[in-house]
Amino acid sequence: MIMDRLYNEALKKGPVCVGLDSTLKFLPKYLLDQDLSDGEKILLFNKKIIDATTDLAACYKVQIACYEALGLDGLKAYSQTVKYARNKGNIVIGDVKRGDISSTGQQYAIGHFTGDFEVDIMTINAYMGEDAVSPYYPYLKDKGLFILQRTSNPSAADLQNRDSEGKTIYEVMGEKIENWGQPFRGQSGFSAIGAVVGLTCPEEFERIQELSPHTYFLVPGYGAQGGTGQDIAKILKKSSCAVVNSSRGLITAHQKLGCEGELFADHIRNATLAMKEDILKWL
Amino acid sequence: MIMDRLYNEALKKGPVCVGLDSTLKFLPKYLLDQDLSDGEKILLFNKKIIDATTDLAACYKVQIACYEALGLDGLKAYSQTVKYARNKGNIVIGDVKRGDISSTGQQYAIGHFTGDFEVDIMTINAYMGEDAVSPYYPYLKDKGLFILQRTSNPSAADLQNRDSEGKTIYEVMGEKIENWGQPFRGQSGFSAIGAVVGLTCPEEFERIQELSPHTYFLVPGYGAQGGTGQDIAKILKKSSCAVVNSSRGLITAHQKLGCEGELFADHIRNATLAMKEDILKWL
Repeated sequence: MIMDRLYNEALKKGPVCVGLDSTLKFLPKYLLDQDLSDGEKILLFNKKIIDATTDLAACYKVQIACYEALGLDGLKAYSQTVKYARNKGNIVIGDVKRGDISSTGQQYAIGHFTGDFEVDIMTINAYMGEDAVSPYYPYLKDKGLFILQRTSNPSAADLQNRDSEGKTIYEVMGEKIENWGQPFRGQSGFSAIGAVVGLTCPEEFERIQELSPHTYFLVPGYGAQGGTGQDIAKILKKSSCAVVNSSRGLITAHQKLGCEGELFADHIRNATLAMKEDILKWL
Repeated sequence: MIMDRLYNEALKKGPVCVGLDSTLKFLPKYLLDQDLSDGEKILLFNKKIIDATTDLAACYKVQIACYEALGLDGLKAYSQTVKYARNKGNIVIGDVKRGDISSTGQQYAIGHFTGDFEVDIMTINAYMGEDAVSPYYPYLKDKGLFILQRTSNPSAADLQNRDSEGKTIYEVMGEKIENWGQPFRGQSGFSAIGAVVGLTCPEEFERIQELSPHTYFLVPGYGAQGGTGQDIAKILKKSSCAVVNSSRGLITAHQKLGCEGELFADHIRNATLAMKEDILKWL
């Protein structure tokens, strides 16, 4: 069961999820100067990062939007990135935030749980309700989902924090995620259906975690978006229930130091290590 | 302004949106037997449908999930399908239901409003609030959005029909769509930010339309999902505010008649014409 595997990886390596939201502007000059397509350059960038961080990353999250922006060339790089990371034994989250129903949802499941774009876990948007989740049920022996619950962006509150019959919408979503996941629980106690909850409101997150004891969390919002290692450690002390993503905070570490050469990945490794220690020191 | 163009196309040609949710199982045998990749076969299928229906279709909606399921080969077919339809002067809706924020949303905007996957209008999921919509604002002079409001699937009610402070969630979303679109209104009175509202609950739809007089609608749920021409005509009589999509109901018309040869597209044309007449006869 994939969420058991992720739980164990996070315990073993630390709870850092390295986010490969890779765009050309993050690449060091020596890669940009190579005689390759944009997608090929990004693939090289990703491979070097994966090589440099595999022992530190509980998992990788690959943001497909960055690759769709480059069209077919970009999606080839997405495909080869997720293959490369998985072939090295890593768990890969496809951050695709798909959300569609019945036969269309089945097509997304085929697209992202088999073939060129196969990942271990997909992110999902369930505004359409359980019909946007059930197409994935047949895959959940080996695969997993992270459903958007309480996101870390300012306007998340437009909908998610509204009161609905005495609960917030994100609490309603959390209850549903806990229920939908009930038949898919593993040895760790967590189900194959996890949730995305941002770190920007740590008190909210504590309450969300208490309400959903069998839900594993993918947590954005560390670093650039304001969440701290202490914030997440407070929750991880009660339950080892989450991996914490950082994307730009890690994969631009070389740029902050002005490094445009082959050693760029060492700086990204150092940033990943620093993030891991920034969390673990509070545990 | 794209929604003005769509409004005019629907008035001129009728309000039918032909849905290209094309999968291998819908292809006639003579196409399946050709020595081509799966994506190439689907591209041929789509081209024949577009050729046969351009004078009857207000627009085409291409469901990207069906193409993602075939990996890179499928997405090449998606790219070439949307290019082919647009080059013939048609308005193309990319049914991608993307929903992500700030810099990630910008990547989706680049991906689907420029380059290989360029369409005229994208479908969007705004569970994350305005941050999932604003990245597209810079494109709305030429491009448009349809945001999921009240979808046509059974479990839509899991979230969308819940009461929130005296309104349903789909009414809250409708208000936001109307407000977000306010700066992007065209000569037709409709804004570049439309909404997806299913036809399965016609009374709900009537109320939604009254609350959102400047919102243009993409309406799934005709035919297979239970909505009738009379249902939508009732609304179109008050305001020419919608295109009505049918996918399987049209693009499998040849299969219902056992046609596995080159004339398949004639049957799809006939089904499109019948759908148009089934709506227009009530107007």
